[in-house]
Amino acid sequence: MHPDDYVGWLALALTPGLGARTAGKLLREFGTPDGIFNASLTSLEGQRVPAAVAQALHSKRPLSDAAKELAQVQAAGCRLLTWDEPEYPARLREIYDPPPLLYVIGKVELLSKHVISMVGARRPTPYGNQMAERLSKDLADRGLVIASGLARGIDASAHRGALASSSGGTIGILGCGIDVVYPKENKKIFQEIEQHGAIVSEFPMGTFPAPQNFPIRNRIISGMALGVVVVEAAQYSGSLITARLGMEFGREVFAVPGNATQPTSFGPNQLIKQGAKLVTSWEDVVEELPTPVRAELVPVENIPSEERAALVEENLGPIERPLYALLGVDEARQIDDLVELSGLSSSEVLAALFDLELKGVVRQLPGKQFLKVLL
Amino acid sequence: MHPDDYVGWLALALTPGLGARTAGKLLREFGTPDGIFNASLTSLEGQRVPAAVAQALHSKRPLSDAAKELAQVQAAGCRLLTWDEPEYPARLREIYDPPPLLYVIGKVELLSKHVISMVGARRPTPYGNQMAERLSKDLADRGLVIASGLARGIDASAHRGALASSSGGTIGILGCGIDVVYPKENKKIFQEIEQHGAIVSEFPMGTFPAPQNFPIRNRIISGMALGVVVVEAAQYSGSLITARLGMEFGREVFAVPGNATQPTSFGPNQLIKQGAKLVTSWEDVVEELPTPVRAELVPVENIPSEERAALVEENLGPIERPLYALLGVDEARQIDDLVELSGLSSSEVLAALFDLELKGVVRQLPGKQFLKVLL
Repeated sequence: MHPDDYVGWLALALTPGLGARTAGKLLREFGTPDGIFNASLTSLEGQRVPAAVAQALHSKRPLSDAAKELAQVQAAGCRLLTWDEPEYPARLREIYDPPPLLYVIGKVELLSKHVISMVGARRPTPYGNQMAERLSKDLADRGLVIASGLARGIDASAHRGALASSSGGTIGILGCGIDVVYPKENKKIFQEIEQHGAIVSEFPMGTFPAPQNFPIRNRIISGMALGVVVVEAAQYSGSLITARLGMEFGREVFAVPGNATQPTSFGPNQLIKQGAKLVTSWEDVVEELPTPVRAELVPVENIPSEERAALVEENLGPIERPLYALLGVDEARQIDDLVELSGLSSSEVLAALFDLELKGVVRQLPGKQFLKVLL
Repeated sequence: MHPDDYVGWLALALTPGLGARTAGKLLREFGTPDGIFNASLTSLEGQRVPAAVAQALHSKRPLSDAAKELAQVQAAGCRLLTWDEPEYPARLREIYDPPPLLYVIGKVELLSKHVISMVGARRPTPYGNQMAERLSKDLADRGLVIASGLARGIDASAHRGALASSSGGTIGILGCGIDVVYPKENKKIFQEIEQHGAIVSEFPMGTFPAPQNFPIRNRIISGMALGVVVVEAAQYSGSLITARLGMEFGREVFAVPGNATQPTSFGPNQLIKQGAKLVTSWEDVVEELPTPVRAELVPVENIPSEERAALVEENLGPIERPLYALLGVDEARQIDDLVELSGLSSSEVLAALFDLELKGVVRQLPGKQFLKVLL
């Protein structure tokens, strides 16, 4: 499509008070954005459009706003995607209120691949982060694209896992304008996704990440996916909304179980009680996918987690090995504890931990705490 | 029944090579133990009883062994229970190989109440122990009787939880003679169950706890219960056999989920994948019970765990409170850490921990490690 052809679509997105559902209804009625903007006030009101929205459309003011928006879009290196275009995610088109227009930065072709969404707590435990990153990488290794909300916590781990995979991609779906980096701490991962994955929003440029945008955004996360994986979510978490939307849309819902004494396990355990599939490894997700999708996946030799761990341990040096054995995957250990428990000097411990981090088998958390990476 | 009336039943139990299944078949064919011992060799062999067993029965030698066994049974303060007697557990009678005779010490009336079985890992995590004890106490508080195998680990925690309840009882089911205390470390709990609960075995006095006895015992654990709760079980755990037998017998199977990175969570998580109900609190168990059973349960005011915790915290002293806040329910903390983190002197910490233990809100583990009790 020629850039100018998007002006009408952008104008719809910029019309105040016009949501995706009503915009969709009008598009079906009047054929194109131009058809809507050229419709009479009476025929617009005949579609039960609120009077203010009908007047805004009829005034054509949004069309001039859209010209400015288009210039910004182009300056940002962003492309637009209407629901008529072949790259538009086919599954998203099926929900009852698909966004007529998406803003996309990065690899637009990822949107038409098989997507699994992964969402969860913003303040996860180390266990949650490890599970999200591991599952996401394993699923991406099979060629699935991992979508998430680019939020703190599990979302970031899900994106990070997919980025660590060679074959897979990842899609970050925003609740703000595509030019707004929120939360700030995700800037680095945001840039990596721009480069290797795709970032998607239905909100106009510069839209502030207002709380009411997130449930709207969440319908895209579950709408475009074959299934939604929830990794840690407290009782009133937005991730549970995403999962419930997934159930409504007929998507598979997956949940990673956790200790019942941990508040962040409430959500996944509750979803499992309600029928979500319990997931402990990528196989549990792939098993539930339709046969034609499974046939397209990248076949892999399935090395069980324990064997991978044994392989790593074999290749550790004489100082690294006892240190590695002192670490856990769920609970981080403070460096002072490691010095005391290992009987090594603190400089030996620091050097060995540094090497283990470089090998990708140990991770440092804030406060000089260390974890085994879940293999 | 008069003690002497049990001699024939005991003789069946003492006949070498005669299992519960064949004994049951013969009882149905010949009416009574006496009928079996008076049967002709031909008619015994007509029942496809192995030749050696038929000869042993026909020789009537087991009857003289049984007289000695009866004396031992009486000396041990043990009572016998045949499957004809009203106290025999009705649900156990329904399985395909119920034991014709049970040895019982303690409150025999518990066997005809509504039973929930709870089994799990012999080497559980603190999380598993806490969940087992809490669930067992809560279910016993509702008037349910908790059966388990009197093994180390989760079994012991399940019995302990039920013993801590005022209204409920507990049944320990043995894979050895009822006069054999195994494992030795459970001696204290064994004695408590003799006094407040019931101990059950189908094995003759003095039977050694041979490995092959445990699967046989496990069918009683699941057979007599409305449902089986599994709390932690590694991949090849006997608890999974008990759960699978439960499924075969049409019992409800419940499992407590756990972090997928923890080997003891493999069993419960796997069972949930296969259709077991995920359980995080007693309500999840009670919900699945038949309506007539639920109608008989003790109604209780349902105080959520968080409120119980808040209530406890309100009533702590100025030194206890910060110390209590440093403890977790899943991971124990060493006393040295507590001294360091609290900034209190070690004598203050020790005194406060002692008080907290007396209040029943903190538990000490070996190695001066401390945990919050799960409320």
